[in-house]
Amino acid sequence: MINKLITKIRKTNAPIVVGLDPMLSYIPRHIQDKAFAEYGETLEGAAEAIWQYNKGIVDATCDLIPAVKPQIAMYEQFGIPGLMAYKKTVDYCKSKDLVVIGDIKRGDIGSTSAAYAVGHLGKVQVGSKSYAGFGEDFATVNPYLGSDGVKPFIEVCKEEKKGLFILVKTSNPSSGEFQDRIIDGRPLYEWVGEKVAQWGEDHMGDEYSYIGAVVGATYPEMGKILRKVMPKTFILVPGYGAQGGKGADLVHFFNEDGLGAIVNSSRGIIAAYKQEKYASFGELAYADASRQAVKNMIEDISGALNNR
Amino acid sequence: MINKLITKIRKTNAPIVVGLDPMLSYIPRHIQDKAFAEYGETLEGAAEAIWQYNKGIVDATCDLIPAVKPQIAMYEQFGIPGLMAYKKTVDYCKSKDLVVIGDIKRGDIGSTSAAYAVGHLGKVQVGSKSYAGFGEDFATVNPYLGSDGVKPFIEVCKEEKKGLFILVKTSNPSSGEFQDRIIDGRPLYEWVGEKVAQWGEDHMGDEYSYIGAVVGATYPEMGKILRKVMPKTFILVPGYGAQGGKGADLVHFFNEDGLGAIVNSSRGIIAAYKQEKYASFGELAYADASRQAVKNMIEDISGALNNR
Repeated sequence: MINKLITKIRKTNAPIVVGLDPMLSYIPRHIQDKAFAEYGETLEGAAEAIWQYNKGIVDATCDLIPAVKPQIAMYEQFGIPGLMAYKKTVDYCKSKDLVVIGDIKRGDIGSTSAAYAVGHLGKVQVGSKSYAGFGEDFATVNPYLGSDGVKPFIEVCKEEKKGLFILVKTSNPSSGEFQDRIIDGRPLYEWVGEKVAQWGEDHMGDEYSYIGAVVGATYPEMGKILRKVMPKTFILVPGYGAQGGKGADLVHFFNEDGLGAIVNSSRGIIAAYKQEKYASFGELAYADASRQAVKNMIEDISGALNNR
Repeated sequence: MINKLITKIRKTNAPIVVGLDPMLSYIPRHIQDKAFAEYGETLEGAAEAIWQYNKGIVDATCDLIPAVKPQIAMYEQFGIPGLMAYKKTVDYCKSKDLVVIGDIKRGDIGSTSAAYAVGHLGKVQVGSKSYAGFGEDFATVNPYLGSDGVKPFIEVCKEEKKGLFILVKTSNPSSGEFQDRIIDGRPLYEWVGEKVAQWGEDHMGDEYSYIGAVVGATYPEMGKILRKVMPKTFILVPGYGAQGGKGADLVHFFNEDGLGAIVNSSRGIIAAYKQEKYASFGELAYADASRQAVKNMIEDISGALNNR
C-alpha cells in the first residue's frame, strides 16, 4: 500500500491528504436540512448529513489528491449510525481509488491490538468465512504500550499489504508534556522515532517502509531531526493550516527525493467555504471551495519544496 | 460515578471487575451454532453469539460484582455489527445496575478527544436534540498526547458525573519500553502518575477522585510506588489471572481503607469453563463456571487484603 501511496503522490504531484473530520457545524444548512427532514434530528440524521457532506468533498477533490484521512472520533461521537457513516465514507473513497488512512489512534496490549488490527486493516474469521470490518488501507497507532502493542498491527499489515503511521510527535500544544521529556540526553519522541525506524526496516515497500510515523507540522525543527532519525519512514504530517503549520515549515519533513512525507489538512479543506478567502463560493458550492483550497495547498507545498 | 462504584464495591465486598472481552474461540459451541443458524457465518452471526454469551455471564455474576469492563476492540473487530453488540452489552449491564468501564483507550488532540468523550461518556448535540452514543460510565484514556488530549474527557466527566482511568503503567510485557524510561531520575510512568494525581485533585468524589489510573497487576512493585504517588486516585488493575497477576501481588494497589483499587479479570472469568479447575461445569453451564470463578477471585483478593 505504501507503493500505491507513493505512485499516487507522484501522479497527482500532491503529497497531501484531506482529513475527512466532519463536525456538524461545518456542514452546510441545505445538507443538514435535507438529512433531518428524512431522518429527524437523530443520530441517523447526523450520520446522513456527514455522509452527504463527505461525498460532495470527495467527488470534488478525488482527482487531485492521493489519499484521505477520516478521523474516526468525529463519526464515533454519533454512536453506531456515525460509525456506519465512517464505513460508508471509507468504502466510497476506496471506490474512487483513494488511499484511505484511518485515523483511529488505537493501541493496546498484544491480544487487543490484534483485534483492532484485524478489524481495521485485516479480516476477521467467523467460522469458515472471513470479513473486513472497516477495511482502511493505513491506520494510525499509539505507541505508549511499546512493541507488543504495535507488532500485531505490523503482522496484519505484512499479510494484507497495508500500512501504519505511528504517533511520534503529535501536533497539539501539550504534546511536549511527555513526548519532549529527556531520556539519556534525547527526548522521548526521538526514542519512539528510532523504534519506528527499526520496526520499519524489516517491512519495506520499494522505496519506503510501510511502517510510517506521525509528526506534527507545528513542530518543524523536531520534524527536521526526526527526518534524519527515520530516513526510510514515511511521515504523516498533521497540523497544516487550521492548526498553524505553513508550507515553508514543511520542507524538512521531506527527503531530497521530494518524497517521505504526506501533509494533512482537515478543516482548512473541508470547511474552506467558511473562510473569508473562499466565501465567494457560498455555502451551496462548499465542495468547489474545498477543491480550490486543495489546489492552493498543493501550490503552497510544491512551491516550498521547489524553493528549498 | 466514582461514589457509586465505591458504594457497590462496599456492598459486594468485591473490588473486582469482570472484563467482557469475548473471543469467538471462548464462546460455547451451542451459542455459536444457534447464532450462525439464525444469521449465518456473518459479522451479524458473530455479534449475536458474543451478545448471548455476554448476557449469560452478566446474568450469572451481576449480583456478585460492582462493575464490568467490556474491551471495545473485541467488538470492533467485527465491524458495525460487533459495535452494536458492544452497545447492547453496555446497555444491558447498566440495566443490571452494574458500573460500566468502557475499555476504549482513546486519546487524541483536543477537538478529537472531545468527540470521543462526547460519544462515550457524554451526549452529542444534533440540532435541538442530544444523544448518548455509547453511554459508558467510565472510559480508559491514553495519555501520550498530554493534558490537552485528556482534559476534554475530564470536562465531560465533570458535567455528566462520569469517570476515567488513564493509562499509567500497562500490564503487557513490553510496557517498560517507553513507560519505564528514566526522566530526571524517575520513570515516565511516575511522571504520568503524578499528572493523573494532579488532574484528579480538582475532580474529587467523596473519598476518591473520578480521574483514575490504570496500573498492571503484573508490576506489583511499581504499583506500590504509584499507590503513594496517587493517594486519592482509584486504580484499575488489569492483568490478574490469565496475564499472571495473583491476589498476594495486589495488596499494595489498595490503600489502608481497603479501597483505592479495582482488579480486572477477563479470560479467567469469562472463559473459566475452559480451565481444568472448572471443567466439571461443562460447556453448557459456562456461566455457572464464571460465577464460581468470580467467587474464587473475590476470596483470593479479600484473603490477601485481610492477611496484609
